[in-house]
Amino acid sequence: MKVLTFGELLLRLSAPGFEKLFQSDNLKTTFCGGEANVAVSLANLGVESCFVTKLPNSDIGHCAAHSLDYFNVDTSNIVYGNGRMGLYYLEKGASQRPSKIIYDRKHSSFSMARKSDFNWDNLFEDVDWFHWTGITPALSNNVLQLIIEACVKAKEKGIIISCDLNYRKKLWSPENAQKVMKQLLKYVDVCIGNEEDAQFALGINSNSNVEKAEIDISSYESIARKIEIEYCCKYVAFTLRESYSASRNGWSGILYHQGKTYISKKYDIQLVDRVGGGDSFSAGLIYGLINHCGDQESIEIATAASCLKQTIEGDFNRSSIEDVMQLVKGNGNGRVQR
Amino acid sequence: MKVLTFGELLLRLSAPGFEKLFQSDNLKTTFCGGEANVAVSLANLGVESCFVTKLPNSDIGHCAAHSLDYFNVDTSNIVYGNGRMGLYYLEKGASQRPSKIIYDRKHSSFSMARKSDFNWDNLFEDVDWFHWTGITPALSNNVLQLIIEACVKAKEKGIIISCDLNYRKKLWSPENAQKVMKQLLKYVDVCIGNEEDAQFALGINSNSNVEKAEIDISSYESIARKIEIEYCCKYVAFTLRESYSASRNGWSGILYHQGKTYISKKYDIQLVDRVGGGDSFSAGLIYGLINHCGDQESIEIATAASCLKQTIEGDFNRSSIEDVMQLVKGNGNGRVQR
Amino acid sequence: MKVLTFGELLLRLSAPGFEKLFQSDNLKTTFCGGEANVAVSLANLGVESCFVTKLPNSDIGHCAAHSLDYFNVDTSNIVYGNGRMGLYYLEKGASQRPSKIIYDRKHSSFSMARKSDFNWDNLFEDVDWFHWTGITPALSNNVLQLIIEACVKAKEKGIIISCDLNYRKKLWSPENAQKVMKQLLKYVDVCIGNEEDAQFALGINSNSNVEKAEIDISSYESIARKIEIEYCCKYVAFTLRESYSASRNGWSGILYHQGKTYISKKYDIQLVDRVGGGDSFSAGLIYGLINHCGDQESIEIATAASCLKQTIEGDFNRSSIEDVMQLVKGNGNGRVQR
Amino acid sequence: MKVLTFGELLLRLSAPGFEKLFQSDNLKTTFCGGEANVAVSLANLGVESCFVTKLPNSDIGHCAAHSLDYFNVDTSNIVYGNGRMGLYYLEKGASQRPSKIIYDRKHSSFSMARKSDFNWDNLFEDVDWFHWTGITPALSNNVLQLIIEACVKAKEKGIIISCDLNYRKKLWSPENAQKVMKQLLKYVDVCIGNEEDAQFALGINSNSNVEKAEIDISSYESIARKIEIEYCCKYVAFTLRESYSASRNGWSGILYHQGKTYISKKYDIQLVDRVGGGDSFSAGLIYGLINHCGDQESIEIATAASCLKQTIEGDFNRSSIEDVMQLVKGNGNGRVQR
Amino acid sequence: MKVLTFGELLLRLSAPGFEKLFQSDNLKTTFCGGEANVAVSLANLGVESCFVTKLPNSDIGHCAAHSLDYFNVDTSNIVYGNGRMGLYYLEKGASQRPSKIIYDRKHSSFSMARKSDFNWDNLFEDVDWFHWTGITPALSNNVLQLIIEACVKAKEKGIIISCDLNYRKKLWSPENAQKVMKQLLKYVDVCIGNEEDAQFALGINSNSNVEKAEIDISSYESIARKIEIEYCCKYVAFTLRESYSASRNGWSGILYHQGKTYISKKYDIQLVDRVGGGDSFSAGLIYGLINHCGDQESIEIATAASCLKQTIEGDFNRSSIEDVMQLVKGNGNGRVQR
Amino acid sequence: MKVLTFGELLLRLSAPGFEKLFQSDNLKTTFCGGEANVAVSLANLGVESCFVTKLPNSDIGHCAAHSLDYFNVDTSNIVYGNGRMGLYYLEKGASQRPSKIIYDRKHSSFSMARKSDFNWDNLFEDVDWFHWTGITPALSNNVLQLIIEACVKAKEKGIIISCDLNYRKKLWSPENAQKVMKQLLKYVDVCIGNEEDAQFALGINSNSNVEKAEIDISSYESIARKIEIEYCCKYVAFTLRESYSASRNGWSGILYHQGKTYISKKYDIQLVDRVGGGDSFSAGLIYGLINHCGDQESIEIATAASCLKQTIEGDFNRSSIEDVMQLVKGNGNGRVQR
Repeated sequence: MKVLTFGELLLRLSAPGFEKLFQSDNLKTTFCGGEANVAVSLANLGVESCFVTKLPNSDIGHCAAHSLDYFNVDTSNIVYGNGRMGLYYLEKGASQRPSKIIYDRKHSSFSMARKSDFNWDNLFEDVDWFHWTGITPALSNNVLQLIIEACVKAKEKGIIISCDLNYRKKLWSPENAQKVMKQLLKYVDVCIGNEEDAQFALGINSNSNVEKAEIDISSYESIARKIEIEYCCKYVAFTLRESYSASRNGWSGILYHQGKTYISKKYDIQLVDRVGGGDSFSAGLIYGLINHCGDQESIEIATAASCLKQTIEGDFNRSSIEDVMQLVKGNGNGRVQR
Repeated sequence: MKVLTFGELLLRLSAPGFEKLFQSDNLKTTFCGGEANVAVSLANLGVESCFVTKLPNSDIGHCAAHSLDYFNVDTSNIVYGNGRMGLYYLEKGASQRPSKIIYDRKHSSFSMARKSDFNWDNLFEDVDWFHWTGITPALSNNVLQLIIEACVKAKEKGIIISCDLNYRKKLWSPENAQKVMKQLLKYVDVCIGNEEDAQFALGINSNSNVEKAEIDISSYESIARKIEIEYCCKYVAFTLRESYSASRNGWSGILYHQGKTYISKKYDIQLVDRVGGGDSFSAGLIYGLINHCGDQESIEIATAASCLKQTIEGDFNRSSIEDVMQLVKGNGNGRVQR
Repeated sequence: MKVLTFGELLLRLSAPGFEKLFQSDNLKTTFCGGEANVAVSLANLGVESCFVTKLPNSDIGHCAAHSLDYFNVDTSNIVYGNGRMGLYYLEKGASQRPSKIIYDRKHSSFSMARKSDFNWDNLFEDVDWFHWTGITPALSNNVLQLIIEACVKAKEKGIIISCDLNYRKKLWSPENAQKVMKQLLKYVDVCIGNEEDAQFALGINSNSNVEKAEIDISSYESIARKIEIEYCCKYVAFTLRESYSASRNGWSGILYHQGKTYISKKYDIQLVDRVGGGDSFSAGLIYGLINHCGDQESIEIATAASCLKQTIEGDFNRSSIEDVMQLVKGNGNGRVQR
Repeated sequence: MKVLTFGELLLRLSAPGFEKLFQSDNLKTTFCGGEANVAVSLANLGVESCFVTKLPNSDIGHCAAHSLDYFNVDTSNIVYGNGRMGLYYLEKGASQRPSKIIYDRKHSSFSMARKSDFNWDNLFEDVDWFHWTGITPALSNNVLQLIIEACVKAKEKGIIISCDLNYRKKLWSPENAQKVMKQLLKYVDVCIGNEEDAQFALGINSNSNVEKAEIDISSYESIARKIEIEYCCKYVAFTLRESYSASRNGWSGILYHQGKTYISKKYDIQLVDRVGGGDSFSAGLIYGLINHCGDQESIEIATAASCLKQTIEGDFNRSSIEDVMQLVKGNGNGRVQR
Repeated sequence: MKVLTFGELLLRLSAPGFEKLFQSDNLKTTFCGGEANVAVSLANLGVESCFVTKLPNSDIGHCAAHSLDYFNVDTSNIVYGNGRMGLYYLEKGASQRPSKIIYDRKHSSFSMARKSDFNWDNLFEDVDWFHWTGITPALSNNVLQLIIEACVKAKEKGIIISCDLNYRKKLWSPENAQKVMKQLLKYVDVCIGNEEDAQFALGINSNSNVEKAEIDISSYESIARKIEIEYCCKYVAFTLRESYSASRNGWSGILYHQGKTYISKKYDIQLVDRVGGGDSFSAGLIYGLINHCGDQESIEIATAASCLKQTIEGDFNRSSIEDVMQLVKGNGNGRVQR
Repeated sequence: MKVLTFGELLLRLSAPGFEKLFQSDNLKTTFCGGEANVAVSLANLGVESCFVTKLPNSDIGHCAAHSLDYFNVDTSNIVYGNGRMGLYYLEKGASQRPSKIIYDRKHSSFSMARKSDFNWDNLFEDVDWFHWTGITPALSNNVLQLIIEACVKAKEKGIIISCDLNYRKKLWSPENAQKVMKQLLKYVDVCIGNEEDAQFALGINSNSNVEKAEIDISSYESIARKIEIEYCCKYVAFTLRESYSASRNGWSGILYHQGKTYISKKYDIQLVDRVGGGDSFSAGLIYGLINHCGDQESIEIATAASCLKQTIEGDFNRSSIEDVMQLVKGNGNGRVQR
């Protein structure tokens, strides 16, 4: 089974430790991006993955691709051309101080990519699963057209399509998001998101109060059902984050399939780096479904994988499937193995 | 409205991370000091501030001043001359291991400053508020004379005077402190401190047990009332720190004004750097009072500002008023903004 | 009173902060090893200590010895010769992600040491206490013979012998461990361990569930009694670790002596570096017994010392006896001293 | 005397030490830019300076301005608005490996600035000298219009205008550069450049071979004369860099004034960071001319200042006028002062 | 054209900057090894390369392989199994202080590899060129047998074989080396080395004095002729290092082919990291010969590539063929490209 | 043979790399001081050494002593008491930019030490050689009295006395220095210095021009003869530094003994850290004389040892006698040993 993900690869520039941006004179670098994160996670779990994007034809673009080669993600279909490297600045929060993200991704090579850059017939050869996120269509109309074309083509070829709704308010308004996502979700077999995503990207409200960290399972269940009915998604999964502070979160997952709801264990996480948590959830879920692990086991894997990610620096989940299964089966008490 | 603060600017040398002093071969540097911290906090909150001190006339002294210029604090009235740069060594504690501070501030340029170094008539021109702390008169008799002169002159000019009691047992004994502070407090309009300060600097006891992290609001109220009556202070404010460990503290504030007590929200802080917490509380309170935010809002601002400071590396509060108001109005759950 | 410890000195290579191994391009280095850690802890507590081992005769071996000289451990009896420097890689865990240790200590100078390398008559001159751990006999048959010879000779000379069972499943099987340790424990006056150690190294089972972080004092008491009876140990002590996560542990100690059980305060530790916790427990206990502090005080010192160690980076406990007594007598609330 | 400089403030992201870009996972940061560098240099030499630009209205833009506040450059006229922070990536060369610069400055706030953003009548109040470089008009047509307006207005007010030709082939072609620069140079009193600049920005050729590091003074003299005649510049100055390798350069300067040529001492520089050398040359020259130091002394100051800059990390020249005069009068033998 | 290289992959632990080993508490890490370095260099020059070895089946072994995946070296034929990761400690010299290397590579997975680990028929499928170095047969008899088998098989298949003599006196004596290398050189088409190699690995003496940094071209020519005659090598190439100090070396290359000698330009290198210089020379030469660049151009490419390597941190040559050709055609004056 | 050195131990705070002070937010730390440097150098050369001083009784003072324990210097006679830790700030120069040193050593524990702190009869037991430098009597009158007492007592006991003149213009004027040093030199057997020292500390002029890096051997010879005659010194040795720049120095040594002059090889040093060069010269010379290496060999050892020191970070010479002899006998070409 081979998974192809398509999206933007970004340079992340983050203040070291818990410093404010430019408090000292250096920034930590990682390359990242929702779909690339999923491809890396999958490769580390042992699933063959391929990442497609467009990058600037410069040392930066090539280093960006190498950062995926490192994990054996197939980058041979990446296109190089004009435009800049999209990037974002990250200031990691602590305790009551929230993390801050400043995007600087406009005019990137990817956002200006054109139809002629990608031959989907070739790209989808031997591919079994296609994953994208709601960030991609938010970037530009160019990219929106590409994602539509990809979805149509994938559907034709019987490729399974998963989508992480991933609503970003700094990229588009709820109105614009809904106009696009409602149309695109028709192609999607596996829909992944959080409560906010459902509300902003699909206009489906619930009674839970995200800010207050209260979680109401039945509310999620009803949202999932609406998505299943309206868009014919086979699976709907949510990450449930309870934000006690910027340093500590509750984390669990929920999977809805054929009228049944499967709820994972809940982890109380002392956060190392929460960015990329959702992406490794997607990867864990895809792993579970591809490997026919069963619905309960799949949501456990997704949740454990994404729990581990949040204890690891950077956007990429460097956990192996052995690491994940140890947490799924164990108790997360963190005893040293020696 | 322009605030002038007067005190010593120090070089802080701290072991990196949670290391013991000299465990590895480098020390992190910041310039700091109670009154300078208040000036920086105010500038970051948008209040015009001016810092007055005496520094060694060397590259070190000038770099020290530049560290305040960075934040647009007015340093044009700083005097340069003989003497050394005062400094202190900091070893940050963790969990059950307390932080350690070793002062090396004797013989500093500031502690040897003389009357002729400062022309208070000129310095106080256009100034509306004068802030100092109990550290300054503890440094030397020279500086004590300067602070007396400054208070007298400020009073003459109708400038509001605030004082953070800031008792430091490594600088003077309770007896010496009380002899001086009781005399100086007569000039003060806004008195800021914690319970220990009241006891050691003013000889006012309470029943609370600081070491045990138990807080008794009524005890603070009675102390505040005594200060109001004895010294005619218009406002009395306390920070209430509940020390669970060197890594985690409870934090709230209390403001007493015209017989009424205003208590802030309480924050459970995962500490990044607690030094300078009290100073940003003073700055937040001054901001609130200057901007007529009302008594409840003022103590909320003071407490939120100083909560944020403790999630930031270094003595300086790098939070803007927007950051502070977001916490005052929000819930401190640390959700990423993106 | 002079304490001699005998064992392997290792190079520890650990990923910086909470990074995965080789996530970035450097590793932090410390020299360490169970018995060396005890020697350093003792020196820092003010007890004269001497460490005996065999090291490669290279810059690395000599730097390793210097790292103990720094703390005034007597290294003049270290032997230099062929073989490599034993080392281990450490990846520090966080939250639900456990720490990982990869040993690379085979073929080390120490594990290949021979009888002729050590003249125990000379080495034990002026020595009052001999400490070793269960790691040493697990390393090689050569070293096992050395430890037997040392125990016999120490016993002859009336030197007190303490042993930390320290079972390591990556070094030997429970069967092999029991075969050796049951024989060696007959020489031991003070037996130190944790519940797992008793089970794997001595074959004494209990009902507690280590993985579940539940602690049953009576179970420990019964194990201690068995050890006292079977091996004639005068003192049996256990560390009680409750692993909530890789970031937070409960920590306490228990001492069994002449039919009585002494239980220490329990600390809720926000871990900085848990490796070496047991070793500083041994050192604290030896300190207490050597200085006739009484059984309750001794277990309190052992537990407080090892609590502090876990708030300090590296294997070595850099706490002084003043630091330890401050925690024994105080409350661990971590207030800054200034 | 007050100097105003106008241009773009950039974020520079450079690989640490002599690493290749993204060889390790962090980048060193400095804010910089030709005109900002001149303003900082002047402030450090003791000349009142003011920097005008447009920056993004974000934490990044404000930190950028603060980096100039640190040196007491007047930033109160900086405009904040839409657009991104321009930046460039720097990979420092060594020996035979050249430095690489990758610009990412398109779509910056400054390059999209509009006429209405700057009121030159107000900005030029109290200003005696206006400095800009050839980078600015190369950025966008918007900015070109601004620089024309500024030159016209400065000329009206009798303000001295200096220009560093600063030709950058990654920003525009020689044809476009000449079209613009020939027109703008008519306003310029003091023209600064290097041989390449004259050729590419003004179309004035010479016989020297820049690549071969051969310098022919008479050729520079003839170029200077042409510039004086054609554009009525009062002073023409050139930096003469002899590139032996990326690690070692010869460095001297030449000033042409009223038919006479003044040549500075030549320094053989072991480079620490050559970027910003030309900017500190401009600042040194402006210092000399403003302070009536005489033509020979002025070119010596300019050359010594810029020599020192190249021994300092970052684009900013942190040298004081005392540092510069010590080199002008001394011999650059680098003896320790103690 | 596809090149396969076979040898050991090592972990290099080097003291930061110019520090002595363990002077501070961290070591920089890179994975490296003669044959792996060649594979990486080739990949960066655009040649398809494949690296074969045996690694420990642990996180360390997998990270080691990933470090080659990063550069798109084909690592799919690497075998994982028992044994340790070979490593070496590096202390970089400066000026009169020589670099020090301490090997710790005994008992590595590779040195204990067995015949059954590698199926040369499969491995050599589609391979056009096989490269190995004299380090490999020096490691163990196991590996010696493997290299013999590989040479025989490669010869059968008409694959070109190149060998870098790479004599290491810490691995074997001249006697042992000659016994092995004289036998193996019969299979080699392209023989690469330096003067010392010829002497120690092949017993061919010359009159030059390596220690004195005097180079006598005719002596190299006569050595090359002897190798050509005795072993039927088609090409013989030497690197000529003139060691002025640990910080500065002269560097050139010489190629002997069909009775003619081709000498490259000589570079005066300010060293950043000289380790791996010879390996990138091999890679450059292979590139030149594979691409039919001609003998003079090939030796220029080899020398320029290896010159650039020595200005780059780490064993790997991160230069592209564009970087190399720019130096071949340019003059190495290190001008910034902007 | 045992050498005792007596002087101040300082904390050195240096800007990282070639940065200006406070350019970034950390300082590298080392403990150092002329006499301590000599003690460490001697210990590393294999000579038993003992260092005597007074330090503050704090964690800082104890860490300072530990930094010498690391090298097996005997610190058991160090006295602890009141006063601060003396320190100095170092900004390392590069190329034409000189290093800067800012002393902050007044009021140190050592400078306020009293007669009663040191019992010279006890201290000198078993001591064969006493070394001090001209920095010590410059610190305070207290310390001057101590050095007089020590010299008198050492002379009585027949201990050889060596003195490095070490004139520091930031500590005293030539007049004061000469008044003291002329008196003290009568006790000295081995006088070490540089030309400046002779001039400023002893009032003996020469014709050489230190600033111009010209060295006139006959001038040094005549100075040495004057010192021999006037003060009855048995050996007079000078370091000869030719300062080409802050990055590159010529370095040699000269020894005058019984009318004969012995000149060492000259090294062209690419400096890593020149501070402490003179101290390791003293140590090398003492080593040579103690071990009866002969006059020529002794000056070669002194010069080679101090050459190596200048290629090592920090004040301490970490070279072994093997390292030194390799340079004495070799050629300093810096070839890697592998």
